[in-house]
Amino acid sequence: MNSDPDFDIYHPTPLLIVISGPSGAGKDTVVQLMKERGLPFHFVVTATTRPKRPNEINGKDYFFVSKEEFARMIEQNELIEYAIVYGDYKGIPKSQVREALASGKDVVMRVDVQGAETVRKLAGDALLIFITTENGEELERRLRERRTETLDELALRIATARKELKRVEAFDYVVFNCDDRQDETVDLIEAIINAEHHRVKPRKVTL
Amino acid sequence: MNSDPDFDIYHPTPLLIVISGPSGAGKDTVVQLMKERGLPFHFVVTATTRPKRPNEINGKDYFFVSKEEFARMIEQNELIEYAIVYGDYKGIPKSQVREALASGKDVVMRVDVQGAETVRKLAGDALLIFITTENGEELERRLRERRTETLDELALRIATARKELKRVEAFDYVVFNCDDRQDETVDLIEAIINAEHHRVKPRKVTL
Repeated sequence: MNSDPDFDIYHPTPLLIVISGPSGAGKDTVVQLMKERGLPFHFVVTATTRPKRPNEINGKDYFFVSKEEFARMIEQNELIEYAIVYGDYKGIPKSQVREALASGKDVVMRVDVQGAETVRKLAGDALLIFITTENGEELERRLRERRTETLDELALRIATARKELKRVEAFDYVVFNCDDRQDETVDLIEAIINAEHHRVKPRKVTL
Repeated sequence: MNSDPDFDIYHPTPLLIVISGPSGAGKDTVVQLMKERGLPFHFVVTATTRPKRPNEINGKDYFFVSKEEFARMIEQNELIEYAIVYGDYKGIPKSQVREALASGKDVVMRVDVQGAETVRKLAGDALLIFITTENGEELERRLRERRTETLDELALRIATARKELKRVEAFDYVVFNCDDRQDETVDLIEAIINAEHHRVKPRKVTL
């Protein structure tokens, strides 16, 4: 910007942006809208051991890896976080995030609340955004509307969401995602990211 | 928002927003543009002992007070900060800021760098935004263009600006104000304020 060190006070540092929140808050839709806006972020691609479906593209939808490869990544501590989902493994490779940040790009990842807390432990300076609905009734309504679950499963999901809401304190920002104003949600997330790039003390993520 | 305490996680807290930066950065213009946008802020009115000019309105341009009254405010610790400008006193009454915050309004004040540091000491949770030009040449050019000063005075102003730039570390955000993109400056300040209202840990200012 300027060769005079007195005036060289701005160092844009790429951010590690974590979009999280309780089940039913609309995390996937929000991240999808961010992608559609063509924002200049690297959106993290998850690695999984489940078989590729015909319509999926390796490296775009997921990185499809063998169980042996996934086991190696766990052992060598190469994953930011991982979980077992319906018997298959899913996880976020550190290398991918590291490379994107090194290239100067902000990195966006969508993880559940527990995963966000894991990211915080690993990278204290990550930017954690908690997405939720405006109130509890709305969250319950959305969980009910999925209709893919038994009543027991629904009760479990609601109880989990309630627990997840209590963990907002571990986050930096809270954003309310209303069904009919999802564009405002994304506007606000953009504003937060823009503001964060102008912090005097930048967040410095190392993995 | 919601009667269920589990879901009651958002408490919008009014902000004390300090717009500051070196001489020549364009603080006045930026605050003027904020006013013109009709943003719902309380813009602080400074108290001064200098005589009212015909075109000025008491309570809008300044609060015009006597030297006795000003002395009383200093003594009773009723000013956030004050300074002597060309033999007259100027200062910001605490009561005004306190009342605006109590009514739930964000408060905006424009002060010099030293004044901003005083505000920080008094209200650690104030939101301090440092406005500057994109580089040093630009700042010098603007100071030169004022043409109201002798060469000695100009040299003094440039040296002061250089010193003021080094105090950016005391601020929360830094915003570059380009001559031909001042609307972007105000957009960014709005984004910062919007983001700050969604922090999980709100800034709580008491005066």
